[in-house]
Amino acid sequence: MLHFYQELNVSTGGQFEVSDVTENIRAVLRESSVSEGMVTITSLHTTCALSVNENEERLFEDIRDFFLTIASPQGSYKHNDLHLRVNIPPDEPENAHSHLIAMMLGNSEIVTVHNGGLVLGRYQSILLLEMDGPRERTLAVQVLGVN
Amino acid sequence: MLHFYQELNVSTGGQFEVSDVTENIRAVLRESSVSEGMVTITSLHTTCALSVNENEERLFEDIRDFFLTIASPQGSYKHNDLHLRVNIPPDEPENAHSHLIAMMLGNSEIVTVHNGGLVLGRYQSILLLEMDGPRERTLAVQVLGVN
Amino acid sequence: MLHFYQELNVSTGGQFEVSDVTENIRAVLRESSVSEGMVTITSLHTTCALSVNENEERLFEDIRDFFLTIASPQGSYKHNDLHLRVNIPPDEPENAHSHLIAMMLGNSEIVTVHNGGLVLGRYQSILLLEMDGPRERTLAVQVLGVN
Repeated sequence: MLHFYQELNVSTGGQFEVSDVTENIRAVLRESSVSEGMVTITSLHTTCALSVNENEERLFEDIRDFFLTIASPQGSYKHNDLHLRVNIPPDEPENAHSHLIAMMLGNSEIVTVHNGGLVLGRYQSILLLEMDGPRERTLAVQVLGVN
Repeated sequence: MLHFYQELNVSTGGQFEVSDVTENIRAVLRESSVSEGMVTITSLHTTCALSVNENEERLFEDIRDFFLTIASPQGSYKHNDLHLRVNIPPDEPENAHSHLIAMMLGNSEIVTVHNGGLVLGRYQSILLLEMDGPRERTLAVQVLGVN
Repeated sequence: MLHFYQELNVSTGGQFEVSDVTENIRAVLRESSVSEGMVTITSLHTTCALSVNENEERLFEDIRDFFLTIASPQGSYKHNDLHLRVNIPPDEPENAHSHLIAMMLGNSEIVTVHNGGLVLGRYQSILLLEMDGPRERTLAVQVLGVN
């Protein structure tokens, strides 16, 4: 079995931002030499997420509006009572809503590899969803399979 | 390592429909000869999803009612302003809510394979959730492991 | 390819409870001798879920409050009309909301294994979310990879 691990650093640009990382993952797959197997992508963070869906600018706005309505930044959250928590860093943001959205979307994605390529439908892209940016984020990408 | 890839074509019957594809996946597993490993199932679409939960007719109705309330087809979505988008097919539906529901549920599922069988609990089935049907859908199924 | 399968039994303590199972998974990884690969964790139940997020007590309360507001136990659900269902056990609970929350969160998690360890960010833990407890729950853990 072949295995190939690489970390990708991504700079997100907005407080809530959706970006397309498909080509970054495709580049890792090429380096791996795997032709049959799978790619696992995990975000190493608790306030951003990964999803496979359509890269369409107006849909990205809907995604932001929808999730920020379901889990409003202005809501009342115990996690945001920073004075009641212990061992928090001095720059800890009030981001409970970002955690909740991240949990709904999930922090990992699996993409099947077949005939040397990512198995994605015509309208599918691998999306990174930032909910507490802008930040430097790290994605762990692992390819497992055979040549 | 053994690897086995197969695409399943599924015709969905309703606008929002939950169906059980467990036996389809079990048939692919049998063909693969894998006894220890995993099955990855991915939908190649952006408006349907996969989930592992209970096959119970009345729960299926709750699932439809619940998600169509959270993300209403009658809501206001930028993705549905078709005249403001470029390069869209002539039959493009107004389906922003379907994308949002698909993202909450996810387009892939992993099922562990142990002793030659799918590792599923007594009440667990692999469910395909159509949010923009009826349509022809394709599921990519890959089995990785050893005999 | 190495493969290692183990089931973990977990007793949950509350009706809705979030608990950290990271150390349990780390112990399985150590037994597996895998240093590059992946761990797949699946709950064998339809009313509990797995998620990777922060182990913070006050966030756990937000998670409970948030999901029980979105899918209220007091809501009207067809799955809860027990007299209209067939073949149900005598102790069947009214738990439609638990199924819906479980579907939003998902019943499985993948964690990448690199250099013999779980690839998790500083604030990431593997969380088991009980939505219909207290109960005895079983997690299927499988490690695939190489030494």
